Amino acid sequence: MNTAPYLAISNRLRSTPFTHRVQQQGATAFTVYNHMLLPTEFESVESDYWHLCEHVQVWDVGAERQVEIAGPDAEKLVQWMTPRDLSQVDKGRCVYAPLADEHGLLINDPVALKLADNHWWLSIADSDVLLWAKGLASAAALDVKVREPEVWPLAVQGPKAEELMVRVFGNNIKDIRFFRFRPMPFNGCEFNVARSGWSKQGGFEIYVDNAQVGVELYDVLIDAGADLQVRAGCPNLIERMESSLLSFGNDMTSQHTLLECGLDAFFNLEHQVESLSGDALRKQYSAGLDRKLFGLVFIASDGAMPISTDPFNGYVSGRAGEILGRLGSQVWSPRYKHQLATVMLEKKYFVENSGEQTVELQLADGGFVNATILPLPFNFSEAGIEAAWVSS
Amino acid sequence: MNTAPYLAISNRLRSTPFTHRVQQQGATAFTVYNHMLLPTEFESVESDYWHLCEHVQVWDVGAERQVEIAGPDAEKLVQWMTPRDLSQVDKGRCVYAPLADEHGLLINDPVALKLADNHWWLSIADSDVLLWAKGLASAAALDVKVREPEVWPLAVQGPKAEELMVRVFGNNIKDIRFFRFRPMPFNGCEFNVARSGWSKQGGFEIYVDNAQVGVELYDVLIDAGADLQVRAGCPNLIERMESSLLSFGNDMTSQHTLLECGLDAFFNLEHQVESLSGDALRKQYSAGLDRKLFGLVFIASDGAMPISTDPFNGYVSGRAGEILGRLGSQVWSPRYKHQLATVMLEKKYFVENSGEQTVELQLADGGFVNATILPLPFNFSEAGIEAAWVSS
Repeated sequence: MNTAPYLAISNRLRSTPFTHRVQQQGATAFTVYNHMLLPTEFESVESDYWHLCEHVQVWDVGAERQVEIAGPDAEKLVQWMTPRDLSQVDKGRCVYAPLADEHGLLINDPVALKLADNHWWLSIADSDVLLWAKGLASAAALDVKVREPEVWPLAVQGPKAEELMVRVFGNNIKDIRFFRFRPMPFNGCEFNVARSGWSKQGGFEIYVDNAQVGVELYDVLIDAGADLQVRAGCPNLIERMESSLLSFGNDMTSQHTLLECGLDAFFNLEHQVESLSGDALRKQYSAGLDRKLFGLVFIASDGAMPISTDPFNGYVSGRAGEILGRLGSQVWSPRYKHQLATVMLEKKYFVENSGEQTVELQLADGGFVNATILPLPFNFSEAGIEAAWVSS
Repeated sequence: MNTAPYLAISNRLRSTPFTHRVQQQGATAFTVYNHMLLPTEFESVESDYWHLCEHVQVWDVGAERQVEIAGPDAEKLVQWMTPRDLSQVDKGRCVYAPLADEHGLLINDPVALKLADNHWWLSIADSDVLLWAKGLASAAALDVKVREPEVWPLAVQGPKAEELMVRVFGNNIKDIRFFRFRPMPFNGCEFNVARSGWSKQGGFEIYVDNAQVGVELYDVLIDAGADLQVRAGCPNLIERMESSLLSFGNDMTSQHTLLECGLDAFFNLEHQVESLSGDALRKQYSAGLDRKLFGLVFIASDGAMPISTDPFNGYVSGRAGEILGRLGSQVWSPRYKHQLATVMLEKKYFVENSGEQTVELQLADGGFVNATILPLPFNFSEAGIEAAWVSS
């Protein structure tokens, strides 16, 4: 789709308590994520990007729904859902825990928060993990309660995020380590606050579970940060691609296994836990991969020209029309002055553990370009790509 | 949300094979449904409405995803998911089969198509039924394959739909009875064609399972119907509200039981089948309902003024600020010259089996109006509301 259409609003696309605020503050575009509105743009994606990298933004990420799993069998169910070993995870910790089915196929890639023994929140990407967990729990007659509590996260992201959070919550904020959370008081409530977020600019996520007080918090954050140039923002495509933050549904989908998505780092195949996907993943590891997610970087002669994709299946092709793989995401990086993309590359275009290679890509204007294949996460300096610090 | 924002396009919001066509043909707004683009408006909702009621439209409803359940335990799994008795359903039949969990809460309200013994498609509304079915099947170790096949339905709807379909598929189309389907040949493929669709204007749904040939079919339908004034269209809010077609996520949600949604007609509580929700529904039936979905109709002094709702929870309130219930959908009917709405009414505002009542509603402009409570489906003539046939 070339031109942005309007989004038709209906109750099915749930608002968050902050939707009215972000509209007042200039959100021009939204996406739908977990049947909920998620803003995607304020001034422009590039202008939002530079602001995020220099100042601090408050994000309405209420669409990051929580799946709560609680009760005597909670630990068992959560471990069943992910191949990542959760047995050593303490209360107050956040763990990136990709979920996979018995074929090793990705179901979602949440951050799991351990609230207490046998009490977890899965802070999910865009798929109804609630239904999968309910299905597993019902059929196995597990002693757990699975529900979506009324929690709408707010993220505070950017280099000045800690300064703003200290003003609102006090100095204790500084004691929260990366991927840890603790309850913090605000206006009579206690919200879990984690040092986390979907950018690499630093910051926090506040798990708001009271809509009214959440909006009070939202306003206090905006007011308290005036001299920090705080403003409403949202997850930013440029920033997340430069930072190699993968998106479920874009870069990796339910058609891909955890190994194909390159998520090996988040579990140990040899250390066996009681997970649905362990056997399939071990088998695929031994057999080798037919495709794998890689990064591609290039500079088109025509500047930011994007890659051409097949409208039916999203495939990227080479000069002879051969299929290279499925395009994940692509964006022009104003910092690195390169087009950045992720592609689920077919086997013949990558050789495990080999060095850098190139591939010839068809562009949207019909031309071709040599792109460098890079393993993920991107390492731009190793690839010889220098940041060009030209702030707008 | 008052003004329509833009929809930010990404690969996560899947296109259908027809997305390019409907954009060329003037789709101005989309919604997201099952992680896929669904057009919602072409000329305007009202202009699209009159056209649908007078002519014929081709709808890209590719977002109506199929969950395929096949294998020796397929019948058992599908029956487990719905309280509707499926034991007497023949091959080639479509059945509206609301899905519910062990609390009787709605999971989705698909049309189930029986392709063969132990081979079903659930043609779903907007939730990941695939994940629920996978969870149930995995944990119960059922001998079934559960997947989302590559099927993108096209609907042909409107009073001239049969005429258009006969031109493209031949006279055999006339033999397809309501809520039956059969495979029909087209350009070397065979697509299942059902007499069904999400309007009450008559028509068909074509279960396209070949993208390329599907686009050929799309073009043939548009070309063959020029003198019938065929054009691209989409499910229409006015038409579906006038026709009392309920929408999962809007009128009824996963927070409501099948009884609260008034879906009693689609299953027999006394006839026990092996379904997850049967016990809970029987229990709730005996205990009585605390809330139930009703229709509301009214004419505001200021014409089409909509009902006011609480931005946090979608509640509608009365003159003293009391909560009447959660608003489902609302629209101005140009045919009946009334505002039509659905509301999940609190018990004290309805008495089972009683006659018509009224309730005082707060409107978006701060005023109040007396609205008539009507059972669903709407029966406008019984309510004394005459159609005003003023075509645009």
